[in-house]
Amino acid sequence: MLVVKVGGSEGVNLDTFAADAAEVIRSGQRVVIVHGASHATTTLAAALGHPAQFITSPSGHSSRRTDRRTLEIFQLACRGVMNQQLVEKLLRNGVNAVGISGLDARLWEGKRKDAIRAVEDGVVRIIRDDYSGTVERVNTKLITTLLDAGFTPVISPPAISTEGDPINVDADRAAAQTAAALKAETLLLLSNVMGLLRSFPDEATLISRIAKHEIDGAVQLAGGRMKNKVMAAGEAVRAGVARAVIADARAASPIRRALAGEGTVIS
Amino acid sequence: MLVVKVGGSEGVNLDTFAADAAEVIRSGQRVVIVHGASHATTTLAAALGHPAQFITSPSGHSSRRTDRRTLEIFQLACRGVMNQQLVEKLLRNGVNAVGISGLDARLWEGKRKDAIRAVEDGVVRIIRDDYSGTVERVNTKLITTLLDAGFTPVISPPAISTEGDPINVDADRAAAQTAAALKAETLLLLSNVMGLLRSFPDEATLISRIAKHEIDGAVQLAGGRMKNKVMAAGEAVRAGVARAVIADARAASPIRRALAGEGTVIS
Repeated sequence: MLVVKVGGSEGVNLDTFAADAAEVIRSGQRVVIVHGASHATTTLAAALGHPAQFITSPSGHSSRRTDRRTLEIFQLACRGVMNQQLVEKLLRNGVNAVGISGLDARLWEGKRKDAIRAVEDGVVRIIRDDYSGTVERVNTKLITTLLDAGFTPVISPPAISTEGDPINVDADRAAAQTAAALKAETLLLLSNVMGLLRSFPDEATLISRIAKHEIDGAVQLAGGRMKNKVMAAGEAVRAGVARAVIADARAASPIRRALAGEGTVIS
Repeated sequence: MLVVKVGGSEGVNLDTFAADAAEVIRSGQRVVIVHGASHATTTLAAALGHPAQFITSPSGHSSRRTDRRTLEIFQLACRGVMNQQLVEKLLRNGVNAVGISGLDARLWEGKRKDAIRAVEDGVVRIIRDDYSGTVERVNTKLITTLLDAGFTPVISPPAISTEGDPINVDADRAAAQTAAALKAETLLLLSNVMGLLRSFPDEATLISRIAKHEIDGAVQLAGGRMKNKVMAAGEAVRAGVARAVIADARAASPIRRALAGEGTVIS
């Protein structure tokens, strides 16, 4: 079992990704695909006159401010843009893809954050109407039902809160939870970077291996969205996934190259 | 087996619809839910600065002009608005709902129209870049797989063309094809009207029964979007569905009332 999370950022080639996924699936691998829609959400939010806002936590973690309207736009981007595009491209490559969300059959359950602390001009502000949270429980039956019948699940946020609200969750970390719940051997986190770089953006400083005991240090080292990826990889490996690979989806055969160890391998 | 198509037009109460669907499913019925997103598409198209256009065929049939950008907006509305809302409401009522589209696993296959004839100022114009078509084949395996595992499928357009393009299809007629393919006993077409009215909008003129041999006449009588509904009902009944009911989704218990024969029953 292989869980592959693919990003939608600039530079990621979804056509070569879909072609590669088809090859891997044809070889007999059970593959679950996860994606977010950060880039598409930001584009759509601007087009709809409700521009994206990002907040920084006191610990330096950046995340999307998700008021009710942003949640709606996030759902549009996840379900109406990225998921449909990926399913279409996979179908063109002969994969029997089925697009589902973390809402469907309560696939990704989590807690909606009661309050978020955001640093603004050096002052900590409390935000209470945010629709974001973290996946705490993966109800795998929908995924295994689809896989057993020969379908390939393509999963996106939102997740669902214990109160039944859709919530914005980080797709990297949701993919990690999914890999752990499915007892997958491997989690791939593919995006428009080679992996974790010691000195971003110098690709010559790629860190090719991170052992379990080095994860916390690597999280500290990482900046921006890479921090989420290293955290996600760490969560998966600590939960029993044999290895997680943070790798590049800009060139051909991104899945097979990551499986061959190109990128940052956490194990 | 029961296929229920619900519209998203003004007046339709999706909360009471979801509560009623939950009751019917709990009673042991196998239920498949289908929806479109005509209203949401029009709203979103205006918000995104690409207002909806409708065209009229030489035979007087009205349909949405679906250029590439409109197709994208239609996908946003179907997948990101209506489908997510319905799934969320069904989950709140304890239904293990799973939202899928006609694209997923090539569920709704059809032919994309090569050319559309539109009447404009009395002149017939040929449109060649339209992404619309009709469902010709329903690949039921995804639906039956979900139902057999205890999930309730909630299906929306788009469909997929034989060339692999997403296409705008009429959800009423797609629901009819789905009911026929599943050998459903009943098809319900619920919206914000009581049924077929002899003199629209006088509800005292509701036609409560249409026999098979009366369908063509009823199609002639119907105007606007009701024409599609009567055609869809007729297609389902001619394909072996025991009865189709065009009924009201504005009040409580819309499904059970339609099953009890309230509305226009075609059989």
